[in-house]
Amino acid sequence: MSKKLWQKGSVVLHPLVEEYTVGEDPLLDTKILPYDVDGTRAHVKGLHKIGILSDRELKQVLAALNALMRKYRQGKIRVTLKDEDCHTLIEKFVTQQAGSVGKKIHTGRSRNDQVLTAVRLYLLDHANILEAMIRSLAREFLKKAEQYQSVPLPGYSHTQQAMLTTCGHYLLSFVESLLDDADYLKMMGAHLSKSPLGSAAGFGVPLKLQRDYVAKELGFGGVYVNSLYAQAQRGKGESLYLEGLSQVMLTLGRFASDLILFSSREFSFFSVKENLLTGSSIMPQKKNYDAMEILRANGAVVQAHQSTLRTLAKGLTSGYHRDFQLMKKPLIESTEIITQSVEVVRLFISSLRVHKQSIAQKIQDDIFMADYATLLASEEGIPFRDAYKRVVSDGSLSLDPEVAVKKRLSIGAPGNLQLHRYKKRFS
Amino acid sequence: MSKKLWQKGSVVLHPLVEEYTVGEDPLLDTKILPYDVDGTRAHVKGLHKIGILSDRELKQVLAALNALMRKYRQGKIRVTLKDEDCHTLIEKFVTQQAGSVGKKIHTGRSRNDQVLTAVRLYLLDHANILEAMIRSLAREFLKKAEQYQSVPLPGYSHTQQAMLTTCGHYLLSFVESLLDDADYLKMMGAHLSKSPLGSAAGFGVPLKLQRDYVAKELGFGGVYVNSLYAQAQRGKGESLYLEGLSQVMLTLGRFASDLILFSSREFSFFSVKENLLTGSSIMPQKKNYDAMEILRANGAVVQAHQSTLRTLAKGLTSGYHRDFQLMKKPLIESTEIITQSVEVVRLFISSLRVHKQSIAQKIQDDIFMADYATLLASEEGIPFRDAYKRVVSDGSLSLDPEVAVKKRLSIGAPGNLQLHRYKKRFS
Amino acid sequence: MSKKLWQKGSVVLHPLVEEYTVGEDPLLDTKILPYDVDGTRAHVKGLHKIGILSDRELKQVLAALNALMRKYRQGKIRVTLKDEDCHTLIEKFVTQQAGSVGKKIHTGRSRNDQVLTAVRLYLLDHANILEAMIRSLAREFLKKAEQYQSVPLPGYSHTQQAMLTTCGHYLLSFVESLLDDADYLKMMGAHLSKSPLGSAAGFGVPLKLQRDYVAKELGFGGVYVNSLYAQAQRGKGESLYLEGLSQVMLTLGRFASDLILFSSREFSFFSVKENLLTGSSIMPQKKNYDAMEILRANGAVVQAHQSTLRTLAKGLTSGYHRDFQLMKKPLIESTEIITQSVEVVRLFISSLRVHKQSIAQKIQDDIFMADYATLLASEEGIPFRDAYKRVVSDGSLSLDPEVAVKKRLSIGAPGNLQLHRYKKRFS
Amino acid sequence: MSKKLWQKGSVVLHPLVEEYTVGEDPLLDTKILPYDVDGTRAHVKGLHKIGILSDRELKQVLAALNALMRKYRQGKIRVTLKDEDCHTLIEKFVTQQAGSVGKKIHTGRSRNDQVLTAVRLYLLDHANILEAMIRSLAREFLKKAEQYQSVPLPGYSHTQQAMLTTCGHYLLSFVESLLDDADYLKMMGAHLSKSPLGSAAGFGVPLKLQRDYVAKELGFGGVYVNSLYAQAQRGKGESLYLEGLSQVMLTLGRFASDLILFSSREFSFFSVKENLLTGSSIMPQKKNYDAMEILRANGAVVQAHQSTLRTLAKGLTSGYHRDFQLMKKPLIESTEIITQSVEVVRLFISSLRVHKQSIAQKIQDDIFMADYATLLASEEGIPFRDAYKRVVSDGSLSLDPEVAVKKRLSIGAPGNLQLHRYKKRFS
Repeated sequence: MSKKLWQKGSVVLHPLVEEYTVGEDPLLDTKILPYDVDGTRAHVKGLHKIGILSDRELKQVLAALNALMRKYRQGKIRVTLKDEDCHTLIEKFVTQQAGSVGKKIHTGRSRNDQVLTAVRLYLLDHANILEAMIRSLAREFLKKAEQYQSVPLPGYSHTQQAMLTTCGHYLLSFVESLLDDADYLKMMGAHLSKSPLGSAAGFGVPLKLQRDYVAKELGFGGVYVNSLYAQAQRGKGESLYLEGLSQVMLTLGRFASDLILFSSREFSFFSVKENLLTGSSIMPQKKNYDAMEILRANGAVVQAHQSTLRTLAKGLTSGYHRDFQLMKKPLIESTEIITQSVEVVRLFISSLRVHKQSIAQKIQDDIFMADYATLLASEEGIPFRDAYKRVVSDGSLSLDPEVAVKKRLSIGAPGNLQLHRYKKRFS
Repeated sequence: MSKKLWQKGSVVLHPLVEEYTVGEDPLLDTKILPYDVDGTRAHVKGLHKIGILSDRELKQVLAALNALMRKYRQGKIRVTLKDEDCHTLIEKFVTQQAGSVGKKIHTGRSRNDQVLTAVRLYLLDHANILEAMIRSLAREFLKKAEQYQSVPLPGYSHTQQAMLTTCGHYLLSFVESLLDDADYLKMMGAHLSKSPLGSAAGFGVPLKLQRDYVAKELGFGGVYVNSLYAQAQRGKGESLYLEGLSQVMLTLGRFASDLILFSSREFSFFSVKENLLTGSSIMPQKKNYDAMEILRANGAVVQAHQSTLRTLAKGLTSGYHRDFQLMKKPLIESTEIITQSVEVVRLFISSLRVHKQSIAQKIQDDIFMADYATLLASEEGIPFRDAYKRVVSDGSLSLDPEVAVKKRLSIGAPGNLQLHRYKKRFS
Repeated sequence: MSKKLWQKGSVVLHPLVEEYTVGEDPLLDTKILPYDVDGTRAHVKGLHKIGILSDRELKQVLAALNALMRKYRQGKIRVTLKDEDCHTLIEKFVTQQAGSVGKKIHTGRSRNDQVLTAVRLYLLDHANILEAMIRSLAREFLKKAEQYQSVPLPGYSHTQQAMLTTCGHYLLSFVESLLDDADYLKMMGAHLSKSPLGSAAGFGVPLKLQRDYVAKELGFGGVYVNSLYAQAQRGKGESLYLEGLSQVMLTLGRFASDLILFSSREFSFFSVKENLLTGSSIMPQKKNYDAMEILRANGAVVQAHQSTLRTLAKGLTSGYHRDFQLMKKPLIESTEIITQSVEVVRLFISSLRVHKQSIAQKIQDDIFMADYATLLASEEGIPFRDAYKRVVSDGSLSLDPEVAVKKRLSIGAPGNLQLHRYKKRFS
Repeated sequence: MSKKLWQKGSVVLHPLVEEYTVGEDPLLDTKILPYDVDGTRAHVKGLHKIGILSDRELKQVLAALNALMRKYRQGKIRVTLKDEDCHTLIEKFVTQQAGSVGKKIHTGRSRNDQVLTAVRLYLLDHANILEAMIRSLAREFLKKAEQYQSVPLPGYSHTQQAMLTTCGHYLLSFVESLLDDADYLKMMGAHLSKSPLGSAAGFGVPLKLQRDYVAKELGFGGVYVNSLYAQAQRGKGESLYLEGLSQVMLTLGRFASDLILFSSREFSFFSVKENLLTGSSIMPQKKNYDAMEILRANGAVVQAHQSTLRTLAKGLTSGYHRDFQLMKKPLIESTEIITQSVEVVRLFISSLRVHKQSIAQKIQDDIFMADYATLLASEEGIPFRDAYKRVVSDGSLSLDPEVAVKKRLSIGAPGNLQLHRYKKRFS
C-alpha cells in the first residue's frame, strides 16, 4: 500500500478496510482514466488562466499528461490497488514527470468533482457512440424490411395469431423503436451536458475558478451552477443515462424473444447462419440461440443496475458519501453490455433468413376475421358490433393474404408502410 | 357480470378468472376515463372524415360523450367490475344515449390502441401539470434561499462537517435540481407526444383512417408510424415518464433526509410549523417529521413501480399481451404519489425556520482547513499538496465564517450564488 | 378529522399532511384489524396478570372486543381516515363500550409493537393458509400427472426440442416444486413465530409485562427478546415471507409461461375449458389465456413488492421510522395476489386437456439423438464423446417414443417417476 | 478458440457471439471449479457402480482429478475464454492425464446438471461458512454489550430521542439479529441440500444412475427427484440463499447507518480506531467512515442481485435456457460481498469506543416522559390516557437515567437484558 494523498502521521489504513473500500475501482478507474486526463487538462488550463500555474508550468503538466496517455494507449498503465484510484495515479505520474508542479494540479479541485467530471465525460462519449451504433443498426433492420417487404407473416397477440401482417411491417417496428431510442440518447445527452468541474467538494474553493471556460474546453453545453447540486445530482444523471440504455434493451429484448420463438421448430419462421448458434454437450441435434437468450437475460442485468443506482441514492443527505463510488460499476458494465448487445443483434439481423413457405403453412384460416368484420362494417355500412357478430356466426372465411394486407391502408399499417418517414429520420 | 363485447354463444367467463384478470382496473379506469372520452371524440371525428359516420351520427355521438362527461364530473360515473373496463362503459353509454350509432364507434379501433391512447393522454397531461408544480416549488425554495441567503451553515460530506456554506447556497441546490427535473419532464413530454390511435390491434385495419388528423385533434406532436411499434412501445413510454418522476423523488428525497437529520435535537438547524408534525401514542414529548419519512419511503415505492414496468415487459414477444394491463397501476399510483409529495414539500419549505444561533454553535473550528490550504497555495504560490501538509501540522485555524464564505468566488460557490441564472430559467 | 391519541393543545394536523401520512392505511388496517384485536386481547390479559386491570375490567374489555369483532364480521366496521388507524379505532371502540377502562388498554404498549404484532399474526396466519392451499394444488397436479402419465411430450431446452419426456413427468415437476414451496412456508413460519408484543416503542416500559405468557396466548413459538430488535427486525420478517410467496410465483409463473406457449396454435399441446378464456373486441376468433398472462405479470408485481420492502429498510438507523408503515401494503397485496393466483391455477390445471395426437405430430425425429449416444456408450462400451460423434455422422434415428422413455430409468427420469416419494410428502 | 464439445463439422462459432455468450464465465467458473471437481468425483463413482467405468478406469479418473486440484490450489489453473467453461476444462484435463477414459466421464451427464451441482455445492459450503462467521460476529457484539452494559444511551424513533436505553441493550439488538440470520442460513441450507446430479438435461438418460448414492457421496440430504424440476428449480434455490444474505445485510446495514450517525460530531457517541477511517484529498480535518458507507451501499448491490435472479427467471418456460448462466454472478458476487462485510464489521465492533460523557450531555430532559406516564398509570392506577395528558401538562420531569432504565423490567427491556437467552443460542 502506498501513501494516500490524505494520509496523516503514521496511521496506516487497515488492509481489509482498504480492500473493502477500494473494491473493483482499479478495474473501473482504468476505464475512466482517459476522461480523467481530459478533465485534468482542462482544469490546469483553468488554473493557468487565474495565475496558479505559469505558462511554463502549464506546458510541463500538459506534456506529462500527454506522456501518460501515450503509455495508456500502449496498455502500459493500469490502475492498481496501491494507486488507490485513477485520480491519485494521475497526480503521481505528473509529479514524477514534471516535478513539483504536479503537486499544484489538485489546487481548487477535490476528488469529488474530479470523478464527477470524468464519469460524465465517459457517459456523454458513450451516449454519442451508442446513438450512432443504434441508428446504424436501424438501417440494417430497414434493409431487411425492404428485402422481405411483402412476405406475409402472422401477427400475434397473446401469443396467438391475431391478424396477418408482413415481414416488412414487422421489421419496421424495430426500425422505429431504434430510432426513438437513438433520439432519446441524443436528447438525454444534451440535458446532461453540464460540467460539475469547479464544484470541488460541493462547497467551492476560495479561488475564482473559470468554470464556464473550463466547461467549454471540455465540450460541455454549460455548467451545473450550484456547487452542492453538482454533487447532489450524482445518481440522477446516471439514472437518466441508464434509462436510455434500458430503452435500447427493451427494443433488443423484444427482438431476442421473437427470434427465440420464431426459430423454434414449431414455428420455423426465421433462421440465422449456423456460426451464430451453439450446440449441446449431450444432445447432438441442438442448434441453440444462446446469444439471444443471453441478450434477453442482459435486460435483467441492466434493469438491476438502474435499481442499484436508485437504491444507492435513497436516504442520503446532501453532500458526498462514499456510497456514490458504487455508481460507477452499474454505469460502465451496462454500457459495455449494450455495446456488445447492439453488435450481436447486428450479426443476427444481417444474417436473418425468412422462410416464406414455412410461414405460409402456419397461417390460420380465421386470421382474417377482424378484416372481414371491418370490411363488412365499412362496405355495407352496418355497425361494427353487428358485423362482428355476423362474422362469428359465419365462421372463418379465407382471403388471399396479399390482398388482405394491401387493404390495410392507414398510415403505418401493413398496406401503407410509409418507408419515407423512416428514411427522413436517418438524414 | 354483464355480457362482454367479445362474448360468443353461451359460454360465460368464470367469475374467478374475471375477478383475477380485471383486478384493480375499475378503480384505475375510472381515472383514465376522461382521457378515453377525449380519444373517442377524436376517433369518431376521424371516422366521420372517411364517411363511416354521417354528420348526424357524429353529432349524436359527440353529444352522448358530452353527456357522459357531465355525469362523470358530477361523480355519477364509476367503472365497476360489471363494466369490464372504461372502453366498454363508453361504448355502452353512447349506445344507450344515441342508439345504434354507438355500435359503430369501435369501427377501426381495438381496445389495444384505445387504452394506449387514453394512457398516453393521461401521462402527457400529468407531465405538464407536474412540470408547472415543480417550477412553482422551485420558486418557493428560491424565496427561502434569498431570505436566509447568508446564514452560515456547515456543509457535510460523509455526514461529517466538511466546509462551511450558507443556507442560501444550500437551498439553491434544490432550486437547480427542481429546474432540471422540470426540464426533463418537458423534454420527455415532447419525445412521447405521439399518437398510437389507429394502430388497432397492432396490425392496422382495412380502412384509410386519418391518423395524422386524429393525432392533431388530440394535441399530439405526431404519430407512432408503425402500427406494431405503437403497441410494442408500451412500457417504454411509461418507463421514460416514471424516470422523470423518479428524478423528482430523488430531489425531494434528499430534502426529506436532510430535514429529518437537521431537525433532530442533536442538530437543531431547521424546524417547521407544529401543525406539520405528528406525535406519539406513548411518548408525549415527540414531534415527528412523519411526512418527510413517508416521502423518503415513497421514493422506494416509485422506484419499485418503475422496476415493475420493466419486469413486466421482459421476455415478451411482439404484440399485445394482457401483462400490459398491469402497467397502468404503477403509472397512476406514482403520479399521485409525486403530486402529493410536491404539495407536501411545498408546505414544509414554506414554513421552514432556520435557527441561526443553534447552527452557529455547531460549526467546528477545523471546518476551514480546506480554505486555509487553498488560500495558502494561491496566495503564497506553494503547491497545494505542501499547503495541505502545512495546515495539518498547524492544526485548525479559526476564520470568521462570513469572511471565509465570501472568498469562495467560483461560479455557484457560496460566495457567488448566481441567482440571476436561476431567475432566467423561470421566465 | 377526529382528535389524535397524541394530540396536544390546539394544534391540528394539516389535512394535507394527514392525508399524505395516512395514505392507504384505512383500507389496509381494515384487513389487519382482526389480528390487532387478537393482539389486544392477549395484551389486556397480560395487563390483568400484573394487576393493571382488575378481573371486572378485563371482562369488560374482552366483551367490548368481542362486540367489535361481531360488528366487523357483519361488515359494519371499516377503518376510515378519521380513525387514523385500526389501533386508535379499537381503543376508541372499547372506551365507548366499556367506559374509562378503555383508556387503560394502551398501558405498556406503543402503536409500534401493536402494529408489529398484528402484522406478524396476519403473516403467520396466511403462511399457514397458503401452505395448505399449495399442498392441495400439488395434489391436483399429481392427479393430472397420473391421468396423462405416459403420454409422450417433447422436452425442451432453449425453446427447442431436446429429449422426449411424458406428460406425467412434466406435470410432476410442478408437484415437487409446489411441495418445496409449501415446505419453505412452513419452515419460514416456524422461524418467524416470535412475539414482538411488550417491546413498546423499542425500549420497554417500566412494568413487568408477561411477555412469554402473552406470546403463548397468541400461539407464538417464543418472543423476540431484545425490545429494540423486535422493532429493528421489521422488514426482515416481511422479506422472508415475501421470499416464500415469490417462490410460489416462480413455480406458478413457469406453469403460466408453458401454458401460453403450449396452447398456441403452433404447438396445440394443451387446452383448457373455454370459460377460462377471454376474447377480443376486434378479432372474433381469439381465445386468449389472459389469466395466465396476468399471472405471469403478477410475478413482477410480487417481486417489486419485495424490492420495496428492502429499499424501505435501506439506510435506516435503529428505532422506529414512519417509513415502516409502507411495508404493510407490499405484504397484504402480495398475499392477496398469491391467494388468487393459486386458485386460478387450480381452475386451469383441473380443466387441462392434453392433445395426444397433436403432440405426437410435433415430435421431431432427431429428438432421440442423446438417447442413442448414451445407449451406444453404455451398450457398446465406447466413450460417450465418441458415441456422440457417431450419432452426429449417422444422423437422426427414429425410436419408438414409449420405448425410448421407458429406458430412462434413473430416479425421477420419465421412465422412473417415483410417485410414491411425492405421496409420502402429503401425509 | 479451441474446439467445443458440441462442435460439428467445420462451422466455427463467431468470435463476437462466443465472447458475448461466455461473458464473465471464465472468472466465475474458476471459483466454482473445485465444486465441479467434487461433483465429477461423485459422478464417476456412480458410473463405476453401474459398470460404465472399470475399477482401473475409476482410479485413473480420480487420480487425474486429484492432480487437477493440486494444480488449482497452486494457482496454476485458471478457466480462460478458450476453455469455454470449467466443465470442458475438467473433461479435457482428465482426458490429457488419463487418456480416453476421460471421454467417458460425461456419460449420463449434461453440463446442465453438472453446473447445477457445482453451484449448489458452492452455495451450501458458503452458507455453512457464513453461518459460522455470523455467529462469531454475534459473540463480538455480545462482548461489547457486556462491556458497556449499563452506559445510558438515548433510544431513537423518527431520528428523535424517544426513551432512554443502555449501550448493552442497544448492542444486544445486533446479537439477536445476527443469531436469527445464522439460524435462517442453517435452515435454508437444510432445505436446499438436495442433489440435482443425474437429472442430465432435465429429462434423464437411458441408464440407471445411482442418484441416491451419488447424492450421499456429496453430502446432500437427498435428491431433487423429478429431473425436470431439478432444472426448473434453478433460480429458486439461489433466491432463497440470497434472501439469507440480504437478511445479514439488513442487520449490518443498520449498524453501518447507526455508526455513521453516532460518530458524527453532532452526536459523538461512538468512535473506532483511526486506522479504520479514511481522509479527504482536500479537507485535512476529515475522518470518514467510508467502510460503513460502502457497507450501506453494498446492501443495494446485494438487493439488486436478488432482483436480477428473479427477473432472469421471469417468463421462462420449463427447461434449460442460457439465461440461467447469468445467475452465477449475483450468487458469487453477493457471497464475496457478505463475507468481506462481516469481516469489516468485526473490525469496527471490536474497536468500538463508547463516549460515555459525550452521550450523557446529549440526553434530553423530556426523554423520560413515557416512563412517567406509565409509572403514573401503574402506581396510581389511573388510566394511561389520563396519565399521558397529565405528563403533557406537567412538562418534562428529570429522572436519574440509571434508575429509569432499571425500572424497565419486561423481558428484553433495558432493565432486563436476558443475556442467558443469547448465550444458550451459541452453544
